[in-house]
Amino acid sequence: MKIRRLATTAATFDAELEQLLHWSEETDAGIETTVAQIIADVRRDGDATVLALTHKFDGVQAASVADLAIPPAELKAAFDGLPEVQRQALQVAAERVRRYHQRQFEVTCQGFEFEDEDGNRLGQQVTPLDRVGLYVPGGKAAYPSSVLMNAIPAQVAGVGQIVMVVPTPRGEKNALVLAAAHLAGVAQVFTIGGAQAVAALAYGTATIPRVDKITGPGNAYVAAAKRRVFGQVGIDMIAGPSEILVLADGSAPPDWVAMDLFSQAEHDELAQSILLCPDAAYLDAVEAAMNRLLPDMPRAAVIRASLEGRGGLIHTRSMEEACAVSNRIAPEHLEVSSTAPRRWLPHLKHAGAIFLGTYASESLGDYCAGPNHVLPTSGTARFSSPLGVYDFVKRSSLIDISHRGAQVLGPVADTLAQGEGLQAHARSAAMRVDASGG
Amino acid sequence: MKIRRLATTAATFDAELEQLLHWSEETDAGIETTVAQIIADVRRDGDATVLALTHKFDGVQAASVADLAIPPAELKAAFDGLPEVQRQALQVAAERVRRYHQRQFEVTCQGFEFEDEDGNRLGQQVTPLDRVGLYVPGGKAAYPSSVLMNAIPAQVAGVGQIVMVVPTPRGEKNALVLAAAHLAGVAQVFTIGGAQAVAALAYGTATIPRVDKITGPGNAYVAAAKRRVFGQVGIDMIAGPSEILVLADGSAPPDWVAMDLFSQAEHDELAQSILLCPDAAYLDAVEAAMNRLLPDMPRAAVIRASLEGRGGLIHTRSMEEACAVSNRIAPEHLEVSSTAPRRWLPHLKHAGAIFLGTYASESLGDYCAGPNHVLPTSGTARFSSPLGVYDFVKRSSLIDISHRGAQVLGPVADTLAQGEGLQAHARSAAMRVDASGG
Repeated sequence: MKIRRLATTAATFDAELEQLLHWSEETDAGIETTVAQIIADVRRDGDATVLALTHKFDGVQAASVADLAIPPAELKAAFDGLPEVQRQALQVAAERVRRYHQRQFEVTCQGFEFEDEDGNRLGQQVTPLDRVGLYVPGGKAAYPSSVLMNAIPAQVAGVGQIVMVVPTPRGEKNALVLAAAHLAGVAQVFTIGGAQAVAALAYGTATIPRVDKITGPGNAYVAAAKRRVFGQVGIDMIAGPSEILVLADGSAPPDWVAMDLFSQAEHDELAQSILLCPDAAYLDAVEAAMNRLLPDMPRAAVIRASLEGRGGLIHTRSMEEACAVSNRIAPEHLEVSSTAPRRWLPHLKHAGAIFLGTYASESLGDYCAGPNHVLPTSGTARFSSPLGVYDFVKRSSLIDISHRGAQVLGPVADTLAQGEGLQAHARSAAMRVDASGG
Repeated sequence: MKIRRLATTAATFDAELEQLLHWSEETDAGIETTVAQIIADVRRDGDATVLALTHKFDGVQAASVADLAIPPAELKAAFDGLPEVQRQALQVAAERVRRYHQRQFEVTCQGFEFEDEDGNRLGQQVTPLDRVGLYVPGGKAAYPSSVLMNAIPAQVAGVGQIVMVVPTPRGEKNALVLAAAHLAGVAQVFTIGGAQAVAALAYGTATIPRVDKITGPGNAYVAAAKRRVFGQVGIDMIAGPSEILVLADGSAPPDWVAMDLFSQAEHDELAQSILLCPDAAYLDAVEAAMNRLLPDMPRAAVIRASLEGRGGLIHTRSMEEACAVSNRIAPEHLEVSSTAPRRWLPHLKHAGAIFLGTYASESLGDYCAGPNHVLPTSGTARFSSPLGVYDFVKRSSLIDISHRGAQVLGPVADTLAQGEGLQAHARSAAMRVDASGG
């Protein structure tokens, strides 16, 4: 296996790094046109379009959209029917995700109100979204962990109703996905997918409720549909390929780091795995471990393609410099593979999730540590955050003005509004000042 | 003036309300093509394109982009040169906006970390964005209040550098805008605008620093450019026409409510002003006040066009029902025009800002109450929040796993990863379990 090697000491490093990171999401004109048409059709014909397209794309025929709903009893049966070890693992994961997001809710979703010296009361009230749509892909990328990671924060935030859609090509249902929906308290599930499902959630049909926000991953059609309905409803981020960056000081067994890089690479050929280390011998040891471990991996072909196409082993002058390079990359997952990881934390500014210590493998975070596995990709950790309870609430400012407050603030607003040429604004403030003739 | 009257008792109410609210942002293919070309040109030729387009669109010729920068001394001179009353009004507004957002920062921007029973430490760290671009429109819509409302939250959040762009058609600078930039602590100002300014901020040029997020209002070209660079950088919301909804129990002087409706309508012909009241006589009184007050308004033509085209007076059965209709509309600005406004607050779920009491005119909130005046429009208050300090920070999850934690969580992740067919994930977790052979 041939993985690119870079060194920060090379004069060409900046250009090489840029090339390594380069990824552009092409917008496909054909997909855009198809998706625009599907959305228009769903808006016009509602359930009829959803039924027709579910037949066409998924090979599922039903008399009505109501027949495409999975009743709660079927979700529960799927859960009850799992092997004990899977059921317990799902339960542990759900419980830990719930506990983490409850703590996150307490810290991040508080409203506030304070009174100023004139008796005005200013603040914000926080309220949950009424209804959220959760898109779950069907087929090979059907991940029960995604159901937990999207539904539980919504539920903790107090969202009134979670409507899940999941396509079931040729009628095949994924028992783990249904079990996760049961466990996460999803109220309604429809076996529909694609742009038609996104459109139905965004605009509502006779059977499918209109939601306020749509979250969850999907293919290029789903992503294009989410972009198009944005504004009509909220959406979560649209993710690029998944990424891991390991910052190693050489204290972890090389096999562990090799397998962590594999765990990202096995997602798909575009996934990106990068290792930064100031010790060239350790880079060699990890590379040797990768070559030794690869043949045993069931997804070896995908791992190889990903690592050869987009992977990188970067030799840095120091751990400090490795932190600086990491900040430039702003990775989705950042493992600080060190027995003293807290030493480097103050240097790390941009990352979706930071895994601290040699025991903190990304896979634990993907499934059951508790924090969300939906994270900003493609450098967007410079300005975005993990999916969280804060994505399922919104804030309203509260502006409660006293009689005295109106006397003090009225002239200020009057002056500024006149400066902007907005005389009704000025008059509306001035009228509330006593003896203004208002 | 002829303003639409609706009554919730009418069988046709739902349809009439939907028609009243109808607003669709048309995407103009010509604008899209032009903007795509400008962005491509700026990415390829950087400063040269910015200079050429600034000459072409704004009639401003300069030898270099550096020459388009406004030095801090010029901002300060603009501030010092303002009439005393304007300078003081700006200072009061800036101080109040700062104080409110400091309080908001304390409540909403805390990180957290907690330890579970296995010694794992889980949490989130909050860090400010490195660099933010602030777009300020030139010409007639140049609002110093927007400079304060965008720059101060960024500054309070700890953003390292705020880069402001403001076009100056024919070289004309707005002294109030420059003064506001000085007051808000903006470090760098370039007199550029349009899609070229957005592209320069998103990708950087030799002279203009690449930013992590772009906020601030703009025309259709600016909005289209912001949509296109989204993903490369963060953006704030893209606002539709401004709206006010007044929920009146009849306790405010009708002139006050009339002027508040005008203050929204004077923004532009598409702005929307709606009054909800269970008292038909009060609706008559407000309408009479509007007819009496209109001729005195300098912007009477705009106000009339807006109110006749998109305004509405809605007679409801009760205040409770008025609250329910308001939730359906999810207005940008919601005035609860009542001497007992807190009675209705628990009924109000969706609104950008809620103004409580007869003294709380929207204009006070627009300029100086303290809360942000950048608010979700077009019903997006169902799922979005006012611009705030939380828009200028991002979160990174912290996942610190103990040796014991790896023993407990490893088997859980192993099971779930195998259920998803991701064997490298499974192995990466399993390897860290003692005596696993890893």
